[in-house]
Amino acid sequence: MSDLIADVAGRARDASTDLALATRATKDAALEAMADSLITDAVAILAANAGDVDAAQAAGVPDHMIDRLRLDQGRVEEMAQGLRDVAGLPDPVGEVVRGSTLANGLELRQIRVPFGVVGIIYEARPNVTADAAGICLKSGNAVLLRGSSSALRSNTAIIDSLRRAAASSGLPEDVVQLVPGEGHEAARSLMRARGLVDVLIPRGGAGLIRSVVEESTVPVIETGVGNCHVYVDAAADLEMALRIVLNSKTHRTSVCNSAESLLVHEAVADKFLPTVVAALQESGVLIHGDQHFAAYADVVAATDEDYAAEYLGLEMSAAVVPDIEAAIRHIRRYSSAHTDAIVTGSQSAARRFTAAVDSAAVIVNASTRFTDGGEFGFGAEIGISTQKLHARGPMGLQEMTSTKYIVTGDGQTR
Amino acid sequence: MSDLIADVAGRARDASTDLALATRATKDAALEAMADSLITDAVAILAANAGDVDAAQAAGVPDHMIDRLRLDQGRVEEMAQGLRDVAGLPDPVGEVVRGSTLANGLELRQIRVPFGVVGIIYEARPNVTADAAGICLKSGNAVLLRGSSSALRSNTAIIDSLRRAAASSGLPEDVVQLVPGEGHEAARSLMRARGLVDVLIPRGGAGLIRSVVEESTVPVIETGVGNCHVYVDAAADLEMALRIVLNSKTHRTSVCNSAESLLVHEAVADKFLPTVVAALQESGVLIHGDQHFAAYADVVAATDEDYAAEYLGLEMSAAVVPDIEAAIRHIRRYSSAHTDAIVTGSQSAARRFTAAVDSAAVIVNASTRFTDGGEFGFGAEIGISTQKLHARGPMGLQEMTSTKYIVTGDGQTR
Repeated sequence: MSDLIADVAGRARDASTDLALATRATKDAALEAMADSLITDAVAILAANAGDVDAAQAAGVPDHMIDRLRLDQGRVEEMAQGLRDVAGLPDPVGEVVRGSTLANGLELRQIRVPFGVVGIIYEARPNVTADAAGICLKSGNAVLLRGSSSALRSNTAIIDSLRRAAASSGLPEDVVQLVPGEGHEAARSLMRARGLVDVLIPRGGAGLIRSVVEESTVPVIETGVGNCHVYVDAAADLEMALRIVLNSKTHRTSVCNSAESLLVHEAVADKFLPTVVAALQESGVLIHGDQHFAAYADVVAATDEDYAAEYLGLEMSAAVVPDIEAAIRHIRRYSSAHTDAIVTGSQSAARRFTAAVDSAAVIVNASTRFTDGGEFGFGAEIGISTQKLHARGPMGLQEMTSTKYIVTGDGQTR
Repeated sequence: MSDLIADVAGRARDASTDLALATRATKDAALEAMADSLITDAVAILAANAGDVDAAQAAGVPDHMIDRLRLDQGRVEEMAQGLRDVAGLPDPVGEVVRGSTLANGLELRQIRVPFGVVGIIYEARPNVTADAAGICLKSGNAVLLRGSSSALRSNTAIIDSLRRAAASSGLPEDVVQLVPGEGHEAARSLMRARGLVDVLIPRGGAGLIRSVVEESTVPVIETGVGNCHVYVDAAADLEMALRIVLNSKTHRTSVCNSAESLLVHEAVADKFLPTVVAALQESGVLIHGDQHFAAYADVVAATDEDYAAEYLGLEMSAAVVPDIEAAIRHIRRYSSAHTDAIVTGSQSAARRFTAAVDSAAVIVNASTRFTDGGEFGFGAEIGISTQKLHARGPMGLQEMTSTKYIVTGDGQTR
């Protein structure tokens, strides 16, 4: 482990012990101060961001990446509002998860406590810096942030602003820190800091997440790859099915809860395929279909890779299945277990699908786009877990905590 | 990944999809059949075990290790009873963890589901084979068991018996499997089976656990190292403190929830030290003490290693601290964050200690020995987690599950 990471993680650990004991009032005041500070420092933050954008443009970074990197006054105000929103949410720390009095009189309580030190490794969106810092602070965790090197000037300016605000509210400034060092080595040192960092959350593309999962000795919460399906059952209301397919695919294509694959029961294929193919193509979607879909103009033949693909764009794989069991088998084989939906009017089909499909979210008669912390009412979201350990699905403040047992007696022994 | 592990894990995955959908009645019937089967096969199991014991004795394995390895009719009956006890516990699968109706009418339920395939790597106690298989089956998980090579004959006989019983109850026999192959390579292949195995739980000594944590790409739940403290506060009832210290240290020394370190507030040191030193020494405990304790006969000087040690025997480190804050700092520095206890009559001291000590269990006025799934009323325990992700403290059936969201609508789109 590098000395650099040992130093920042050690300071985060010290700060986390104070933060874990901070009252909600102190934490909320710090979040409000951070929001004010971002507004006050907006000129400096935007100047730093302009430096990042200039460097990225000079390096020939594609426009859609530049768009993610670029901040403006409106985005800074959104970051500030995000911090204020988190201040308004209930404090997860101290919540009693379960409790009982044992036969011998011991009083048992399991309560939520912060993890301690959380590491976040993310790509070139500087707004993640403020969002992640806010969620970690509210849940009582010191945070080590490692964004993309291409956003280093922006992230440094944002973190400086947040740290000053934390200190002004009576919290240690080291509750928020940037992980120093160059490129992948810095991220790697964070991944190897077992014992100093309690949890690591990668936010970004499939490649980033895979590399963190492979290399990290710190426990990881895997987020976000979504090959989501919509299955249109024999008993579906086909008008509803069309609305749900279109919304799931086209409402926002670059996000993990957008649909990438369409399955249609053969009993409704003759009726549904002409409509859905026309509507998807009208929205600009390129369909990679099986032989049933490929009979339509401009549908290309799907490969095995297509069924496994997370397009994140205006493309969709599609197949006709003989029955619901075939749909379930297809989803088991290809789904990334993020979100899979059924459209059906049949209670037994809905029950079979929700029981047999093992994904973070299984949706009946609604768009896949609802798998989201905001939509679920969590108020804030650090990411969507696609692993089974600790948290699965949208992660809000509760998912950013561990628990401990407090056992109170009056002299009990065994 | 080796072909061997890909084969057994693939069969476990197939079995797990059936098991995940099995009703409680089916699972309980299988557990009862497994218990009956162990009794029926006791002669064969004991013969296989005698082979392991003979080989271990010929290899010069120490007596206390042979004791752990050896089975007799009574231990086989205990294994069977353990399976029946698990059958009597509520089914965690399907439990609704939270639920609400969203503003747009979507009905949201978060329900418990099995992990899928669980790997257990453990040392030479063959009874763990039946215990772990029972807990995994009840929680709906297919299990891959990798015990010590020295118990291979015993584990093979037990697993054969359990598999026959599973099949006779209508479950796939592959819900329980032995991981084949030689020694560390077999364990290693299990650790690298990411995507095939959902969770890995090592049960055993600190060395085993460290190696799994370092090498595994499968998510791990770390269990069991316990350097547990008892802090006797200035406001302690000293008779209660004596009982708690003795019980915590001497009730059973080889377990992770036994106390390894004693801290005494200096205000009560003059009164408490003579009594506690005499009582511990009378029970055969060797005290490694600071200068205050070392003033007593037969107390040896403690080193830094002593304060960090998990003795698992009749030894204890001991120190006098100037105040509760010094006790908290000492525990933060040396504790393995398993279980730490305070003895005090002061409400403010209890409140400060339980807030500031970040361990899986923090105990007020009771023995550290209560950190246990059985004592906590969980009915069964797969181990005691000392990590913060997913589960912390004793792990019962609920901790052997993940969750998924089921979202039901009537055509909602965004």
